[in-house]
Amino acid sequence: MSIEQLREILINIHPFVSVIHLREKQKTAKELFEVVQLLMYANIPLSKIMINDRIDVALVTRAVGVQLAFHSLGASVVKDHFPQLRIGCSIHSFEEGKKAILDGADYVLFGHIFDSKSKPGTPPRGLEELKRVTTLDIPVIAIGGITPENTRKVLDAGAKGIAVMSGVLDTRDPLTAVKAYANALKIGGGKSEKVL
Amino acid sequence: MSIEQLREILINIHPFVSVIHLREKQKTAKELFEVVQLLMYANIPLSKIMINDRIDVALVTRAVGVQLAFHSLGASVVKDHFPQLRIGCSIHSFEEGKKAILDGADYVLFGHIFDSKSKPGTPPRGLEELKRVTTLDIPVIAIGGITPENTRKVLDAGAKGIAVMSGVLDTRDPLTAVKAYANALKIGGGKSEKVL
Repeated sequence: MSIEQLREILINIHPFVSVIHLREKQKTAKELFEVVQLLMYANIPLSKIMINDRIDVALVTRAVGVQLAFHSLGASVVKDHFPQLRIGCSIHSFEEGKKAILDGADYVLFGHIFDSKSKPGTPPRGLEELKRVTTLDIPVIAIGGITPENTRKVLDAGAKGIAVMSGVLDTRDPLTAVKAYANALKIGGGKSEKVL
Repeated sequence: MSIEQLREILINIHPFVSVIHLREKQKTAKELFEVVQLLMYANIPLSKIMINDRIDVALVTRAVGVQLAFHSLGASVVKDHFPQLRIGCSIHSFEEGKKAILDGADYVLFGHIFDSKSKPGTPPRGLEELKRVTTLDIPVIAIGGITPENTRKVLDAGAKGIAVMSGVLDTRDPLTAVKAYANALKIGGGKSEKVL
């Protein structure tokens, strides 16, 4: 998918999602910066844009925050230096969730919950583990294999929201897909994030 | 080479170099952060440490500055947001040098000057192009295939200093190598940088 195609999709769907995640994988700092600028010029609010891993790109674009993975700078270091950034930690276990809380993360992204195209060969964490993680004192956003059909189960397990990649972008009609998720969330009382 | 080996070499050689460049290639933000901390605990001054591409790592470690390549955030954006950082731009032509000046770079790294193991298959820029680039109103550090023997020619072409990778790290005795460069620079009146 080209940046232009992505831009068109995001212009259409952003009113139905609360957060758009931009991931650094295979993208240079320069490219990420250009994508954020493109979205900004398309009137997609910076308050909805989270940048994965590249704190520097988030700072110069004034994106709302950063999503940190295991290979990223630590959440506590980032929080100390840049308290203006919202910080999400990508976690894969209850223990990592406890550490994220100590480090000062604002929320955690936990997954993958179900089998997912993005994570072939790795067993999903499942709803039981999600239930355990959501007992932690931090908002949990669930990711991985989430469909409009299973969204309710994810919210019932305690997730505060869901994050979706292929479930929106790999469909013929991303707007219809995102509306189906938004609808499932409305019924379930959660919020949606969009990971790119 | 392990991080521990690198640390030992740097402890030995840093008194003879004015700058140590840490490059992000194949290193995550977390790893780069850990390397800088290791060097700091070994009493290598942060005022000698430049970080390639990752402005965020430079900011949180308080390294002296960043080396920006074509794929990095633009020098002008970085200068605007983080005036405390020293900014070097990696350039490969006179035109890129002019742009680096407009963008507010503090110096440029130009190369590669001679045939270099790090750049197989790409023709070197040569001393004539170096002479042209050094007419620009910005300090030029030369890189690529520089040996203690040809250092004098590089300085005579107008370079303010040299940057060396394999010429030090790929030798049996990095300390002896770095002293040979330091000696060549002393005779030639330049300063040395060490790129890792």
